[in-house]
Amino acid sequence: MIPSASALPFDDIRALFARMPSADADAVARVRHRESELTKPPGSLGRLEEIVAWLAAWQRRAPPRVDRPLVAVFAGNHGVAAAGVSAYPAEVTAQMVANFAAGGAAINQICLANDLGLKVYDLALDVPTGDITREPALDEAACAATIAYGMEAIAGGVDLLCVGEMGIANTTVAAAVCLALFGGEAADWVGPGTGVDPAGIERKRAAIQAAVRCHARHLSDPLSVLRRLGGRELAGIAGAILAARFNQVPVIVDGFVATAAAAVLYAVAPAALDHCLFGHVSTEPGHRRVLERMGKTALLDLGMRLGEGTGAALAAGIVKTAARIHAGMATFADAGVSNRSD
Amino acid sequence: MIPSASALPFDDIRALFARMPSADADAVARVRHRESELTKPPGSLGRLEEIVAWLAAWQRRAPPRVDRPLVAVFAGNHGVAAAGVSAYPAEVTAQMVANFAAGGAAINQICLANDLGLKVYDLALDVPTGDITREPALDEAACAATIAYGMEAIAGGVDLLCVGEMGIANTTVAAAVCLALFGGEAADWVGPGTGVDPAGIERKRAAIQAAVRCHARHLSDPLSVLRRLGGRELAGIAGAILAARFNQVPVIVDGFVATAAAAVLYAVAPAALDHCLFGHVSTEPGHRRVLERMGKTALLDLGMRLGEGTGAALAAGIVKTAARIHAGMATFADAGVSNRSD
Repeated sequence: MIPSASALPFDDIRALFARMPSADADAVARVRHRESELTKPPGSLGRLEEIVAWLAAWQRRAPPRVDRPLVAVFAGNHGVAAAGVSAYPAEVTAQMVANFAAGGAAINQICLANDLGLKVYDLALDVPTGDITREPALDEAACAATIAYGMEAIAGGVDLLCVGEMGIANTTVAAAVCLALFGGEAADWVGPGTGVDPAGIERKRAAIQAAVRCHARHLSDPLSVLRRLGGRELAGIAGAILAARFNQVPVIVDGFVATAAAAVLYAVAPAALDHCLFGHVSTEPGHRRVLERMGKTALLDLGMRLGEGTGAALAAGIVKTAARIHAGMATFADAGVSNRSD
Repeated sequence: MIPSASALPFDDIRALFARMPSADADAVARVRHRESELTKPPGSLGRLEEIVAWLAAWQRRAPPRVDRPLVAVFAGNHGVAAAGVSAYPAEVTAQMVANFAAGGAAINQICLANDLGLKVYDLALDVPTGDITREPALDEAACAATIAYGMEAIAGGVDLLCVGEMGIANTTVAAAVCLALFGGEAADWVGPGTGVDPAGIERKRAAIQAAVRCHARHLSDPLSVLRRLGGRELAGIAGAILAARFNQVPVIVDGFVATAAAAVLYAVAPAALDHCLFGHVSTEPGHRRVLERMGKTALLDLGMRLGEGTGAALAAGIVKTAARIHAGMATFADAGVSNRSD
């Protein structure tokens, strides 16, 4: 089991990577066996069959079930918002958290339509992180405490976790994290976010470049990248993904910002994301790039770029359906259908 | 309204194309206006926003709703099955229809998971169509009667229709239809279907080539292609798509076979499919090709190749969610969220 939610020093977090559970090969084998007996041509459900095997591998049971899916949305504010990098003012973060609570946001409707639980984690919105262009976003204690807080997201018997975020200016932060982790030019990782104009995109590019230069001597350690260039919602997501691994909870990662948080874990150990599915690929250009760098293929490509967990939650509907197909279908023998080998 | 379901001569079916309703531009404008007021950046839900506009255009109401979605599965048998073109024996068509009735197939579970109605139309399974390599699949009266029968699928207040099929050997038939409609080489349109081996694929290629040669002098009329090279489930699907247009019912088309049936209508008049969404792109290679020829982009690409309406039904879950997002979200004014123009 994971340590308690009290703040973990980074060394304790690093130690978790060395003892991560691996996939349950026996559950996967049982899924594959049942799959071969169901009334359909072998492999004809394509990625849905892979999803079922993945669920079984990380839930450590066959057949897998999705009875208690949860969308966890982490919200944070960012000092760098003052640099004019977003199309919306910083107070929109708290306003949208209130909108989530009132049921008015897109993520609320997706959760209702797909019968997914929703929890929103409001991470000290009144205390924006440091402006990454000239100081660390967080000190180590605050970052570690937020990772530990994120670990709480999987409490309560969740069997599928979607991680998403809300935070004005956080595509800037995510781009800075990706630039530090994967290199390239600042412009490679910058996009319109919520819809900033070309001048705003140039401000984002300049901010990211300044941030990576300011912290250049401290970016070889991925957790240091997270605390210096990231933000509270990214730390919370990283914690949630880590804890899920130790608690048999498969994870669906949302868009660019959530993926940047996941990429911190990948940079420590690529296998740390083996229990993660990437729900969709955003039109924010950095998202496709970071997925490519990690060798991940998103489930959906629908031109979305909203965040809030919306892409992950939409994918969760498909994952739920995949699990139900596998558990509920008849076998050739049960249904009296002639198999090809007859 | 459409004519009654008594058999229509082909001339009467052709006449329907001249009086097809066009999109409801006013409903689309109302959707776009509401979309601009919802608490999200403009355009940030990408294709989901386009889906809502499409639903409104063809349901002729704003906001659109999906309260009574139906998956209609048309099943038929084919004389060409005797040519060894499938991995499964022809009796599997009837066995799978029984499996649908018993709730044991993949489509049953997808419908349960997404709260979609399901109707299966068993089209004279004991009387396979003619072997297309040497005779027409159907005579004009039988084809017209099956089109008319398919028109019944939209009866009963359906507000979203998914069309799918079941029929051993019907990817061979679909490939023949596509070759006749779009040209190219027989090999361009042939694939493994349910999983036939390379020798079987060669038998499919030879059968398709023989069929198109046999009927070569009668393939300039798309409805003649349908009756000579198609089959009952393709005719039923064509009828259902046509009738939906006249009854304010948007349609989601499933895989290669259902798309080949839709392509017959496209060949008569490309605008005849404007009320259709293509739910997914199959791994059957002809499917991607026919979608490209018609300039259509499928919603999902999940490596599926099962038919039964499975890809369309999975897409219907996303379409339902899209409609719910649009209808249920708060506006900036309602939620007290600052808009970018504030």
